[in-house]
Amino acid sequence: MPIEPTHRFLRACHSLPVDQTPVWLMRQAGRYLPEYMRVRQQAGNFLSLCKNPDLATEVTLQPVYRFDMDAAILFSDILVVPEAMGMSLSFGMGEGPVLEPFLRTPSDLRRLRPVQPEEQLGYVLQTVTQIRQALQEKTPLIGFSGSPWTLATYMVEGGSSKTFRYIKGMLFDQPALLQQLLDQIADVVADYLNAQIAHGVQAVQIFDTWGGVLGPREFVTFSLRSIQRIIDRLQRVGPDGQTVPIILFFFFFGSMLEEMIGTGCDVIGLDWTTHLATARHQVAARAALQGNLDPAVLYATPDIVRHQVRQLLQDYGPYPGHVFNLGHGMAQDMDPGRVVDLVRAVREESRLLLQQNGGMQRIQEKRP
Amino acid sequence: MPIEPTHRFLRACHSLPVDQTPVWLMRQAGRYLPEYMRVRQQAGNFLSLCKNPDLATEVTLQPVYRFDMDAAILFSDILVVPEAMGMSLSFGMGEGPVLEPFLRTPSDLRRLRPVQPEEQLGYVLQTVTQIRQALQEKTPLIGFSGSPWTLATYMVEGGSSKTFRYIKGMLFDQPALLQQLLDQIADVVADYLNAQIAHGVQAVQIFDTWGGVLGPREFVTFSLRSIQRIIDRLQRVGPDGQTVPIILFFFFFGSMLEEMIGTGCDVIGLDWTTHLATARHQVAARAALQGNLDPAVLYATPDIVRHQVRQLLQDYGPYPGHVFNLGHGMAQDMDPGRVVDLVRAVREESRLLLQQNGGMQRIQEKRP
Repeated sequence: MPIEPTHRFLRACHSLPVDQTPVWLMRQAGRYLPEYMRVRQQAGNFLSLCKNPDLATEVTLQPVYRFDMDAAILFSDILVVPEAMGMSLSFGMGEGPVLEPFLRTPSDLRRLRPVQPEEQLGYVLQTVTQIRQALQEKTPLIGFSGSPWTLATYMVEGGSSKTFRYIKGMLFDQPALLQQLLDQIADVVADYLNAQIAHGVQAVQIFDTWGGVLGPREFVTFSLRSIQRIIDRLQRVGPDGQTVPIILFFFFFGSMLEEMIGTGCDVIGLDWTTHLATARHQVAARAALQGNLDPAVLYATPDIVRHQVRQLLQDYGPYPGHVFNLGHGMAQDMDPGRVVDLVRAVREESRLLLQQNGGMQRIQEKRP
Repeated sequence: MPIEPTHRFLRACHSLPVDQTPVWLMRQAGRYLPEYMRVRQQAGNFLSLCKNPDLATEVTLQPVYRFDMDAAILFSDILVVPEAMGMSLSFGMGEGPVLEPFLRTPSDLRRLRPVQPEEQLGYVLQTVTQIRQALQEKTPLIGFSGSPWTLATYMVEGGSSKTFRYIKGMLFDQPALLQQLLDQIADVVADYLNAQIAHGVQAVQIFDTWGGVLGPREFVTFSLRSIQRIIDRLQRVGPDGQTVPIILFFFFFGSMLEEMIGTGCDVIGLDWTTHLATARHQVAARAALQGNLDPAVLYATPDIVRHQVRQLLQDYGPYPGHVFNLGHGMAQDMDPGRVVDLVRAVREESRLLLQQNGGMQRIQEKRP
């Protein structure tokens, strides 16, 4: 029988009551932090930083120490998976990532090789081990991967895209080929996340960054179903006997909550364009929700940050199952001082809200 | 009393029965057409093309003649409005538009000047007159403008943006200043659209291209309300005595249909991420719907194009009030031959669907 977690982040992921709303921020380790920039310079470039367990551990811990975040998230990149599958990955100066050679035909797909996470992605697992050693039981560690659709967009386009012309061409003209690619990626991702769990991550987040460029039918068929395939294969109890919650993050696609819940995830991460009160009402205790402050609020004054935090906490209401986060990642021109304001506001305002509600989160009945 | 229109595009906008589903495509005049490229070269650059009524008329008519579209749309750019308000507009080579100097403070706003559409935007109105002379009563002409929020993003950022940092900073820190700017733009847009109507456009479309980057509360307060201000000021009967339908196009924000209907528009244009059947069910005859094929379908084979068209028509169902369109504009690397396939498929498949339903569009009761 799984052990009930004590960390408020893990408790909230399982929709258990907490003393205050847990908070972490997507891309909390990154270029807006001067201490990150120093380590990155030391590493040479972004990819060498990802591949150096000592330095990747250091930057993972930086925001946890600086802001006392309720969770750490493994410092890495979603594109290490296509690289492990045999593609060549590089990051141009100031430009997006490049994956070569791009995949467009059945013979292109045959070039992909099977992945043993312990081999090709051993450096990530080593980083997980080191972070856990450093954090001990103080702060839970989140592992992650891109969703198969999201990874496939980079692999088929050969990098970032605005129009997604080639992968959408494949989707409409060669759906079976795309499905084969997605299945192959999903199986690698499942093995990879299981390896992260075996090495100690206490929650996993799957980033479906580009599912939002699909129409609703295609979103279900090509994004959600391949995420489902991963979830079906995940080892959901960690080596410590605790259940490992699965967080699905969706960007610009908040309209299919029923289908998202149907994947069996524990937490749905939402961007800021979804009204949190409406989403919670619809989800009604069947999943926890993570999010979803507009990151641009961090450009405003501390008073406004607090006001927006309070509003978001009130939108969610006095129920268990809220993990506070931004609706997207931190940007490099943001002020770390504002993150201090944000974290403090989440703690103080959520405690206040709890007091106003008699000091307990009310349990909401699950919808049938 | 307004006269009932005969054109199937105008009839569909008013949710009146039609013989086949009308079709036009956003950015139907543009770089994917070789005849457009020739005229553009003649004009020198994009902005000179917009400002030359003869050439702007010519490129407006090109897709109408080539594809027999059910509507023409005025060839122009949304940013001629900020230019008329006193900002300097330019388009860099291969880059986005630049508006100088950007607006960030109360004194910046004081630099904006009042607009008499007949003066600063006389070239657009002259183009409208010439297009109507060329089209006579054969094909209706759509006029357009950007929404105040969309125009304000360019005016405050000084051009295109990915993060919308400055306008969102203004939104959160100086909401009254932003509101003042939006009101000022809305009043100019209302005058501008009224002038277009007086010169003969038979429908108007307001493009809310960037409302989708806002959270739901901010979307209502800063985008929808300023669109409402325009609609309240519009002269909705044209010089020919016909009612001029108002189309609102939203990009990446399909979740607030109730609020969109509440503006009093006639047609809601949707991007392809909204399921058309769900949207129609929710809107239920209170507005017509325009859209919403994923433009990327045009990269697929003619068979797939037809299949996707049929599915979309079936999604909408046998009711009046559907204007077929893409969920976003044509891209420059698209094949004009595929547009022929698309238009033919819309006509044939919608006639077939109508036959299967006894040759008549069924009237759906309006929701209370």
